[in-house]
Amino acid sequence: MSPSRIASALLLALCPLVGHADDTLHATATTLFKPIPERGEDALARTVTPAEIELGHMLFFEPRLSRSHVISCNTCHNVGTGGADNVPASIGHGWQRGPRNSPTVFNAVLNIAQFWDGRAQDLMEQAKGPIAASVEMNNTPERVVATLRSMPAYVEAFAAAYPDDPDPVSFDNVARALEAFEATLVTPNAPFDRYLAGETDALDAREREGLRLFVDAGCAACHNGVNLGGMAYFPFGVVQRPGAEVLPEGDKGRFVVTQTASDEYVFRAAPLRNVALTAPYFHSGEVWELEEAVAIMGSSQLGRELDAGEVGAIAAFLRTLTGEQPRIEHPLLPPSTAATPRPDHGVAEH
Amino acid sequence: MSPSRIASALLLALCPLVGHADDTLHATATTLFKPIPERGEDALARTVTPAEIELGHMLFFEPRLSRSHVISCNTCHNVGTGGADNVPASIGHGWQRGPRNSPTVFNAVLNIAQFWDGRAQDLMEQAKGPIAASVEMNNTPERVVATLRSMPAYVEAFAAAYPDDPDPVSFDNVARALEAFEATLVTPNAPFDRYLAGETDALDAREREGLRLFVDAGCAACHNGVNLGGMAYFPFGVVQRPGAEVLPEGDKGRFVVTQTASDEYVFRAAPLRNVALTAPYFHSGEVWELEEAVAIMGSSQLGRELDAGEVGAIAAFLRTLTGEQPRIEHPLLPPSTAATPRPDHGVAEH
Repeated sequence: MSPSRIASALLLALCPLVGHADDTLHATATTLFKPIPERGEDALARTVTPAEIELGHMLFFEPRLSRSHVISCNTCHNVGTGGADNVPASIGHGWQRGPRNSPTVFNAVLNIAQFWDGRAQDLMEQAKGPIAASVEMNNTPERVVATLRSMPAYVEAFAAAYPDDPDPVSFDNVARALEAFEATLVTPNAPFDRYLAGETDALDAREREGLRLFVDAGCAACHNGVNLGGMAYFPFGVVQRPGAEVLPEGDKGRFVVTQTASDEYVFRAAPLRNVALTAPYFHSGEVWELEEAVAIMGSSQLGRELDAGEVGAIAAFLRTLTGEQPRIEHPLLPPSTAATPRPDHGVAEH
Repeated sequence: MSPSRIASALLLALCPLVGHADDTLHATATTLFKPIPERGEDALARTVTPAEIELGHMLFFEPRLSRSHVISCNTCHNVGTGGADNVPASIGHGWQRGPRNSPTVFNAVLNIAQFWDGRAQDLMEQAKGPIAASVEMNNTPERVVATLRSMPAYVEAFAAAYPDDPDPVSFDNVARALEAFEATLVTPNAPFDRYLAGETDALDAREREGLRLFVDAGCAACHNGVNLGGMAYFPFGVVQRPGAEVLPEGDKGRFVVTQTASDEYVFRAAPLRNVALTAPYFHSGEVWELEEAVAIMGSSQLGRELDAGEVGAIAAFLRTLTGEQPRIEHPLLPPSTAATPRPDHGVAEH
């Protein structure tokens, strides 16, 4: 059974319990949702070391991963602004506009797969994409490796992170180290997490009403689990297709990954953790207000015109998903050497 | 007497003492140069508060100071890479290339004036330039103020930083807070500072030989004081004009500031602190190797073809100017609101 079917079945099974007293709501919530863990790296299938995390930390802020030496991971996944860049679609090499809104890196390790269409199975695979994408960092694996090998401090850092690897400075290890660092970027102890843990007044009456609506109206059918989303794929516009500005016709979503007709306009349900920090919304990034996004979801996915009070309560609930943001020191990066490939700002195809 | 004349007179007065025993060299050095202070903010003519520094810290990393919401001060003055961006000329709004190499922000508070041509008298005046420059952040003071006023956390932070100001969220206070934060970005305790403080073996024999050459050959006539430069203006190519790739004909330097014929191709002597971290060199940013930069200076400014050993020794000395880099936490920035002006990536004139 697919994750989405499991979620739907679970929701149906729970429906008779939903929408009553606060203790019932709490019991339902603890079944549908899970708190953000304190250590995201424990969610990886492997053990990571402090040396690997520190290398990933450097690489995350390293503008020389880009051909221009201007764009780093943090440019579009800014740790100061919710792990995203808060523009409709990222601006990359040559001021080119990317095709979709940058998802937050925070708690991303807890998603089933990465990108809006889930085309990368994990953060390691994801990390390679933007580095090589012509509209993002516009680099090549060979040039990245040559760049990092040119700096003794990086050669040492890779050797420390991957002591058993005879060739530690590799593109795979760049991605592996980025995954290790990014896995640590979790945002625990949101008011909703404290509510799940039993501190039921961590949500006020309106926020609890929003939670009840979120479950009753069906939002939680797709937006469940630890990230309230990020675990399964659904068509955008299952009931009513939004306008082309919100759902551009040219972006067929997961269809491009699976080449399956039923996956046209199918996307991974957006994870809703820290959603109050990550406007604008949807893969097109064309909706700026959380209330508007909630209303669009109501009509497009649930066939329900939520009234202003309902929209406001759901948005109030969603704002309780803002957790403790990671406090990250800006790393010190080694200087380039004579062997370091020079920055290249040209926009021709490489 | 102008600072440059004072420096020249000082050097001439000291010449008989130079080039002999190590203790004489040390005595000469302590007369010509000064150590970097532990607290840069004490160099300001005013008292700054922790609240002001913290506001400036946020603003320094704030991409919404730019019209695009993509470019922050840290983009071109990266605290992880010596306070500069390590490209020939910064890439700004619309992928436009700026006219000159970005000087480092580190220890900049100790310079007599800001920019390569000294057109800003202090960091506060400097900070306003790139925000409004069409090829950099491409913003306007009005839009910056509207942006910051739209976020309650910024309104509070400005009120805390400027409690006596009836209108604390102003463009002047943006620049004032940036100055306060940037003043803290000093890099004390370089090997050369420890040498100046009496730890004479903080420099090895070759580095001391480089220091001796730096003084004897005349480099220190312009590159003296706490920042080994940054205190006076000199013509680039005083003896022999470098090629157009290093000294582009179209950039007449301080002439544009003073409209005085004798200021054609006159620039502020580059401060040499952390010069090993801030390649490429010169206002054109076209020279990548420190040794090459030293050789060019020898021929263009001193009329002297330094041999490879001399160039190497001077470069070795210059590498002792790398101080302790500031460890800066990436600040958490407040989310935009419905009133925040939206990012604008257009490159038309505004």
